[in-house]
Amino acid sequence: MATRKEVAERAGVSEATVSRVLNNVGPIREETKRRVLEASKALGYYPSALARSFVRRKSGNLGVVLPYVPKVNVFSTYYFAEVLSGIGEAVREYGYDLLLMFRSPQESMDFAGLFKSQKVDACIILGSRDVSEERAALRILQEEGHPYCLINQHFEGESFSEIDAEHKQGSLEAIRHLIALGAKRIAFLNGTLDFSNSVDRLEGYRKALAEAGLPFDPQLMLEGNYSRKSGYAAASRVYAMLDSLDAIFVANDRMAIGLMQGLRELGVQTDDFPAIVGYDDSDAARLTDPPLTSVHVPFYEMGKRAAKRLLAQGTDGSDDEGAPREMLGTRLVVRKSSRLRET
Amino acid sequence: MATRKEVAERAGVSEATVSRVLNNVGPIREETKRRVLEASKALGYYPSALARSFVRRKSGNLGVVLPYVPKVNVFSTYYFAEVLSGIGEAVREYGYDLLLMFRSPQESMDFAGLFKSQKVDACIILGSRDVSEERAALRILQEEGHPYCLINQHFEGESFSEIDAEHKQGSLEAIRHLIALGAKRIAFLNGTLDFSNSVDRLEGYRKALAEAGLPFDPQLMLEGNYSRKSGYAAASRVYAMLDSLDAIFVANDRMAIGLMQGLRELGVQTDDFPAIVGYDDSDAARLTDPPLTSVHVPFYEMGKRAAKRLLAQGTDGSDDEGAPREMLGTRLVVRKSSRLRET
Repeated sequence: MATRKEVAERAGVSEATVSRVLNNVGPIREETKRRVLEASKALGYYPSALARSFVRRKSGNLGVVLPYVPKVNVFSTYYFAEVLSGIGEAVREYGYDLLLMFRSPQESMDFAGLFKSQKVDACIILGSRDVSEERAALRILQEEGHPYCLINQHFEGESFSEIDAEHKQGSLEAIRHLIALGAKRIAFLNGTLDFSNSVDRLEGYRKALAEAGLPFDPQLMLEGNYSRKSGYAAASRVYAMLDSLDAIFVANDRMAIGLMQGLRELGVQTDDFPAIVGYDDSDAARLTDPPLTSVHVPFYEMGKRAAKRLLAQGTDGSDDEGAPREMLGTRLVVRKSSRLRET
Repeated sequence: MATRKEVAERAGVSEATVSRVLNNVGPIREETKRRVLEASKALGYYPSALARSFVRRKSGNLGVVLPYVPKVNVFSTYYFAEVLSGIGEAVREYGYDLLLMFRSPQESMDFAGLFKSQKVDACIILGSRDVSEERAALRILQEEGHPYCLINQHFEGESFSEIDAEHKQGSLEAIRHLIALGAKRIAFLNGTLDFSNSVDRLEGYRKALAEAGLPFDPQLMLEGNYSRKSGYAAASRVYAMLDSLDAIFVANDRMAIGLMQGLRELGVQTDDFPAIVGYDDSDAARLTDPPLTSVHVPFYEMGKRAAKRLLAQGTDGSDDEGAPREMLGTRLVVRKSSRLRET
């Protein structure tokens, strides 16, 4: 087999550059990369990823832990699709590959073990929930100093590495918008409170009511699990209180779409819908009838930031530390669904 | 550090079973897996993935090569999202992780090198195009006997491992449907012909016309690149021939949605649209106004089959060979968009 030196000579670069290219330690100019790869290929020089990794203790992989739910197409879910696309942009830039690892939503995971067994150089955790086993596993990750980042989940009282969004503010603006239109009785279909974004939304909702001097009515609280199906299932409860309801705030667009389908099947005409505000501002929000007012969350940007925080650490030495929790902004996008019924 | 023997004793299983669990050589009963993982964790036994791999020459990763286009959220594209979800189900079942590798659409790739450098145990290639460099790289993969599979792309004259769909038949049925409604002048917005599915669709389109004794008119052929934007761009050409057009067949739903948006912006009312048939039967097809008639393609199933073909080979010894090219069925789903205008 050819040597690294021969590859370097053929490509007209230093041996160090050959290593950088073949070890995926980026960023490296595309033209340089191309020359090295061509030389390496022409000479049949293939340093084993494993052999290289043994020396450098680097896998070249950014790990992403994802929840796996049978029959739910995780990649077809707007949130995951956007976050992964953002992560994808960053791994592409830094020359890493993306290792996806699935777990059941309730399954605890030995995150630190992923590093010990050298599957990944850094790890992003999606769909994390605030349960005690998860906290314990994350604390070990933190204490042992492995590069990791949580997305869209906050653990109160810890200083975990997190990229989060301003869900409290987003919800506050959604409810203020409905109140400004004249809504007084505003139902809230939220997700479970082991997701911090559900907690944030509830706080925003309550704050907006309090500002306007409106009472908080537990009767108006509904719970789903962020699936379209759970929104659909909530339709019957919404239907039962339809006459007394001005509006409903729904914690993601999927549930809002399910709710609209359910209401329609119960015979409610579009004109008789309560004002509806969704959350996420997914592609689907533009396509529904009526188009859905929704809170925009920069999921793509969140994925990209999380990945860059980790990969920039590993390669260019710039320890992008700062605050462990970074919050990106949300904003309300008003469409037709948030009109009040004519009475 | 603890030994494998100690882990086996604590878990009440054989040492071989410990290895099988920790090496992700599945399928293994969940309960057994759980016991071994708990014992391994309790005793702090972490065999290095790299050390293990050196012995077994196994990475535990199924690789997926994906096209990377800046600003296009690959995971938000229905086709990729569904295929990856199907692959995800299979890797979860077999205890593998999913290694995603991005490349630019025009970038040639040394697929065989992925195996030589032991990044992956098997590899699925998405978004492959019929260009000479790609053929050459795939031939090497084939000749060297690496486990790989192409999805949704056929290379005429080769015997590559492929999971494909009946695109010719799907298109035939779409055009037959339009002809049965009374359409005579049917435009076709297709993708580029370096994708075999574009070629298949064209064949189905021509066959249906020939059956009905209708002429093939090159003036009615339009080309896009499967993006929403290219469908939007085609609207002006469709607009120019609107009066003489009965219907248009569009090679994916994204382009069809772009086309509808474009026509609307040119002032065409929904009632004045030609009959439209899309392709893919994506989630969005149900949400457009009017809902889009479309050809259903079992992308999820295609991903799952491809992954199972590869992983079943690797683990249970059942060399799931059969024909190198497997074709899954497509079917037309009729919705309101394929109505002819009233004249």
